[in-house]
Amino acid sequence: MRGVLPISAVVVSLEVHCPAPLPSDVVQLAHGGGGRAMWRLLQEIVLPAVGAGSGAHAHDAATFAVPPGARLAFTTDASVVRPLFFPGGDIGRLAVFGAVNDLAAAGARPLALSLSLILEEGLALETLRRVLASVEAAARTSGVRVVTGDTKVVDRGKGDGLYVSMAGIGVVAPGADVGPWRIRPGDALIVTGDVGRHGIAVLSVREGIAFESPVESDCAPVTGLLDALLGAGIEIHCLRDPTRGGLSAVMNELAIASEVSIVVDEAAIPVDAPVAAACELLGLDPLAMACEGRLLVVVPDADADRALAALRSLPEGARAARIGRVEGAPARVTAVTALGTRHVLDFASGEQLPRIC
Amino acid sequence: MRGVLPISAVVVSLEVHCPAPLPSDVVQLAHGGGGRAMWRLLQEIVLPAVGAGSGAHAHDAATFAVPPGARLAFTTDASVVRPLFFPGGDIGRLAVFGAVNDLAAAGARPLALSLSLILEEGLALETLRRVLASVEAAARTSGVRVVTGDTKVVDRGKGDGLYVSMAGIGVVAPGADVGPWRIRPGDALIVTGDVGRHGIAVLSVREGIAFESPVESDCAPVTGLLDALLGAGIEIHCLRDPTRGGLSAVMNELAIASEVSIVVDEAAIPVDAPVAAACELLGLDPLAMACEGRLLVVVPDADADRALAALRSLPEGARAARIGRVEGAPARVTAVTALGTRHVLDFASGEQLPRIC
Repeated sequence: MRGVLPISAVVVSLEVHCPAPLPSDVVQLAHGGGGRAMWRLLQEIVLPAVGAGSGAHAHDAATFAVPPGARLAFTTDASVVRPLFFPGGDIGRLAVFGAVNDLAAAGARPLALSLSLILEEGLALETLRRVLASVEAAARTSGVRVVTGDTKVVDRGKGDGLYVSMAGIGVVAPGADVGPWRIRPGDALIVTGDVGRHGIAVLSVREGIAFESPVESDCAPVTGLLDALLGAGIEIHCLRDPTRGGLSAVMNELAIASEVSIVVDEAAIPVDAPVAAACELLGLDPLAMACEGRLLVVVPDADADRALAALRSLPEGARAARIGRVEGAPARVTAVTALGTRHVLDFASGEQLPRIC
Repeated sequence: MRGVLPISAVVVSLEVHCPAPLPSDVVQLAHGGGGRAMWRLLQEIVLPAVGAGSGAHAHDAATFAVPPGARLAFTTDASVVRPLFFPGGDIGRLAVFGAVNDLAAAGARPLALSLSLILEEGLALETLRRVLASVEAAARTSGVRVVTGDTKVVDRGKGDGLYVSMAGIGVVAPGADVGPWRIRPGDALIVTGDVGRHGIAVLSVREGIAFESPVESDCAPVTGLLDALLGAGIEIHCLRDPTRGGLSAVMNELAIASEVSIVVDEAAIPVDAPVAAACELLGLDPLAMACEGRLLVVVPDADADRALAALRSLPEGARAARIGRVEGAPARVTAVTALGTRHVLDFASGEQLPRIC
């Protein structure tokens, strides 16, 4: 890569500019103004935190070569989660894995990330440092780097600490053709782990609810799971990470997009006991709760057992389970309960959990 | 392109879901919840506005092939301008051209854009529609499309209507090597048009200041100017769009990054009379005011006249002017005034114009 982290308007240190210490330990409007204060914020906090250099190779855009014949994937994901830190993660991890996992859902491994920060005046610089350190660590875990970025500041009362938009470029695995257009009647549905943990983890800290067993977010990259499937030679038809709206939403989306029906065995869907208990207490449906480190996997029935074995070979896939099958039109998701009764599993209405990611 | 606008969680219409009319004409928290309300917002407003289809080819990430041997550029730019609409532009145009112009500064033509929206609860849907229409028109003008996106909603009082983060991928023009690392003593500095208009245009509407002659933002793509330079066979050393911090900031950044001094002829810098008058009235420096459709161009002295002729062949480059030259270390920007006196031209402090872009 030539331009490593060319955050807009980045410059290197120079004696003649002789910056005085920051007058305070919080973000100020001047940090977004394009002048010296912004230069210092980038130079002293943003760039070092994400492990980037600066100088002559910092520019408005990063440039890099692409493997010959590569097919690219491109995605973006804003994170507005409240609070910024929650059990098992924070807004920085969420932003990185959000982009990385959307790329994985297209059968792609991450190549480069861009980081867009919207900071609220008054945000503690220490909070910014923590979030940036988390971004750097999460990117490293995912085998990718932040190569370009942008930082804006809005006035007090016009933000909520900070918002992060993370865009990502990935390289589609050779031969992979992963998407709703490949789903066929007869395909098997697999989920790579227990569902609903992210939603409950955020809710618990936001609403001050203490559970007997603390629930941690499942916030993690799913690229390893993709690699396991590819390595086992599985013919992957579709992948989707069940974030906002949970498993219910993604199954409904896929059913509609592919004009198929999905029949899901509710008892087969892994849900941790504390998550199930919390949902029951709060009147929430675990299948509508966001996950941030899971994949819904659609494969031909003949590949399902090998896919399960491949996923379970990884710690993050240890609880992978076959949960349903694809049937013909009409587009609909039907849940079969433990008692054998059937009901239509619809989208959640959308109100239950704002700002979960 | 395979996945045209695969905004996360996009699905197609289906009778069984039979959505009722939106209960109101403003954004609600439920629009960000991942459930049916979000689906309807995307389906009814976001996707049609940016000219995108949906269905089986909508997915979490867009995928596309890259021209063989291409070198990519990648950038991101958040827009938090206040107000959302100003003379000569709006936040949608600003976001698109911000990304497109950062790519141009790397010598790249845009290939694909991603659109990340952060909406505040209570935003009029009509405002969202207007901004999205503007995004679509600006992308079309720039010869590029929004291919992927994400929409989040934050509660009332935690935003300011809407914020937009636009990431862009571009293809670097074959043979181009454009960046601060190429700047050499002896190079000529050219600016492609009059400066400071964007800053004054936004300020005038924000502060309710009426000037005798209304000032419109210069908000526009600079890709045509890049093409003109490339077409004329100019050896482009560096390009930079002088946005936040204006011409002063980018010249200082380049001087520091390249460890050169820049000597600029103040009288040669084109500034429209109303802009100059407004700056004088308000105690602002036009050289520190943001432009959104200009390039600072650095070329070898021997190419300067041909570069000027190439730029002036386009309407948007009609007022291109040679404004200075590069000299050796130390890194510093010196302005020579009309009277022949010299002074150091420093970064602005950064406080004068928050949320200008």
